Amino acid sequence: MQLAEIEQIKQQLIKLDSAAISDAMDSLNIPAGLSGIIPRNSGMKITGPAFTVRYEPIIPEQGKFLNAGNYIDEVPSGHIVVVDNQGRTDCTSWGNILTYKAIQKGIEGSVIYGSARDVSEIRRLSYPLFTTGIYMVSGKNRAKVVETQCALRIGDVNVCPGDWIFADDNGVLVIPLQHLLTVIERAENVEKTEQAIIEAITNGEDLVSAREKLGYAVPWEHNS
Amino acid sequence: MQLAEIEQIKQQLIKLDSAAISDAMDSLNIPAGLSGIIPRNSGMKITGPAFTVRYEPIIPEQGKFLNAGNYIDEVPSGHIVVVDNQGRTDCTSWGNILTYKAIQKGIEGSVIYGSARDVSEIRRLSYPLFTTGIYMVSGKNRAKVVETQCALRIGDVNVCPGDWIFADDNGVLVIPLQHLLTVIERAENVEKTEQAIIEAITNGEDLVSAREKLGYAVPWEHNS
Amino acid sequence: MQLAEIEQIKQQLIKLDSAAISDAMDSLNIPAGLSGIIPRNSGMKITGPAFTVRYEPIIPEQGKFLNAGNYIDEVPSGHIVVVDNQGRTDCTSWGNILTYKAIQKGIEGSVIYGSARDVSEIRRLSYPLFTTGIYMVSGKNRAKVVETQCALRIGDVNVCPGDWIFADDNGVLVIPLQHLLTVIERAENVEKTEQAIIEAITNGEDLVSAREKLGYAVPWEHNS
Repeated sequence: MQLAEIEQIKQQLIKLDSAAISDAMDSLNIPAGLSGIIPRNSGMKITGPAFTVRYEPIIPEQGKFLNAGNYIDEVPSGHIVVVDNQGRTDCTSWGNILTYKAIQKGIEGSVIYGSARDVSEIRRLSYPLFTTGIYMVSGKNRAKVVETQCALRIGDVNVCPGDWIFADDNGVLVIPLQHLLTVIERAENVEKTEQAIIEAITNGEDLVSAREKLGYAVPWEHNS
Repeated sequence: MQLAEIEQIKQQLIKLDSAAISDAMDSLNIPAGLSGIIPRNSGMKITGPAFTVRYEPIIPEQGKFLNAGNYIDEVPSGHIVVVDNQGRTDCTSWGNILTYKAIQKGIEGSVIYGSARDVSEIRRLSYPLFTTGIYMVSGKNRAKVVETQCALRIGDVNVCPGDWIFADDNGVLVIPLQHLLTVIERAENVEKTEQAIIEAITNGEDLVSAREKLGYAVPWEHNS
Repeated sequence: MQLAEIEQIKQQLIKLDSAAISDAMDSLNIPAGLSGIIPRNSGMKITGPAFTVRYEPIIPEQGKFLNAGNYIDEVPSGHIVVVDNQGRTDCTSWGNILTYKAIQKGIEGSVIYGSARDVSEIRRLSYPLFTTGIYMVSGKNRAKVVETQCALRIGDVNVCPGDWIFADDNGVLVIPLQHLLTVIERAENVEKTEQAIIEAITNGEDLVSAREKLGYAVPWEHNS
């Protein structure tokens, strides 16, 4: 995908929210939510193609730090780092050094299936971070990068390099690249249906009649 | 219960906190805490009679949204919605549309034994929301309303229609209607005992002597 | 340890963070993190010697409150209360009365392996509190103090009276007294290494070369 195309899709997606996109994914019967990965500062919303990273546990070795490996230098601007550290909360796979480099490179944010540290500093820098946990114990000597830009499996969801990530206060979603345009179109329709219902009910209409009239059962087919 | 009576009880209860009410419930040996249901915005305190709603799981059906059911149009002003979605965190049973309708109807807040979505919007609207989890995946096609104004069982606590709910930053309590006046009286006494102890210790008295002198062992019998 | 010595060590430690201290502990192969105990207000950082308290469950007795026991009058100024209530989240072992007394005595903060209540009030007082959970149900008649200034075992970490606690937004660490000076020295070196790397990468250097040049593999041996 060309940079200009990425930017255009971002502008469309960022107007939506995770609820509408999830409903669009539901209409295609594709699981999308990364269960248990939650925002570590409030009010963040990010979207972009995934750069995937897979960690594996290693046996600690006394007296030295085995670096966890490097990949950040390879992540393209505008992408979102997605780290699979198997949901481990006993050690971290994100911290302040990676954050400074990510900001400097124009990376959009990080989604960590596992824990992160330096969370005060990351909040102060307003860097969008979504993780399973927060802890201070390093991943060094506990886990290492074994593969990048590979297919990940997080819960019941597949994440391939270039799949799109959408994350906000409700959590994190994965949109497979081949369904991206369909999902955007359906999510926009869902949003329109919901806005129409909200308008009707704040004008005093009953929810049951507003839903029926405005097509809540198939909101991705909205046309008005 | 008449509206005027409800208002008067609310004014008494809202001066208290969940700790004092829980101690009063303890003195009657009635379990009251809804374990694991936590506030989704900070500094909220609500109380009112429960309007109960029970969900059951359904088998997802591809290609359409089966509405989860409607009940919000029936909830009286001043009440608190209590939803039993079996603590599920893989799908939601509260969101922005229900919130707008709840605000418009003068509903006090929602207690969800399960997850909610649209949490940014709900925080922006300052709507009091207490849930097991936050997620974005809809309950549509995953769970449906099977009963309203029925007895619920959440953990080891019973919630009947008209039982009173009290929720603050510590969590959520249920006060059975038949014990309401006793609980208020005892909780007011607990509060007085604790205030007297806090006054004594901030004046430098040892905690052990302050507790003994001020009847901390049976604080609901406070009389001064 | 004399008061002046305690103060001097605090001034050294408080400039560091839990990540650097954890890395120093890793270099000595000593587990230090109290997993699952998290900050209850944001932006707090505390350090000091531990005053330890051990609770045990008791069988509830109807109709009265058995006080959980008192220890707060014995805690020296400048110390940190560490309570082992076995990680229980069904009842609390910290609240507002203990907080008022702790502030009045100059106690630095509390680390509760279990739950606390009165969290709104504690936040308003800016008292540093780290706990497993938040709930409102009292520990009275459910747990009691059985020992103070004893050895605790929290997860895989030992806490002895006088061991040092360090807690910030990432969580809580225990530094055994006999390793304190080594840990401080190594953590200061870790911090210097990390600062040097951050400076290099924000100047545009690749992470991989910055790490290699600046000795990231053995950061506690920093010398420049």
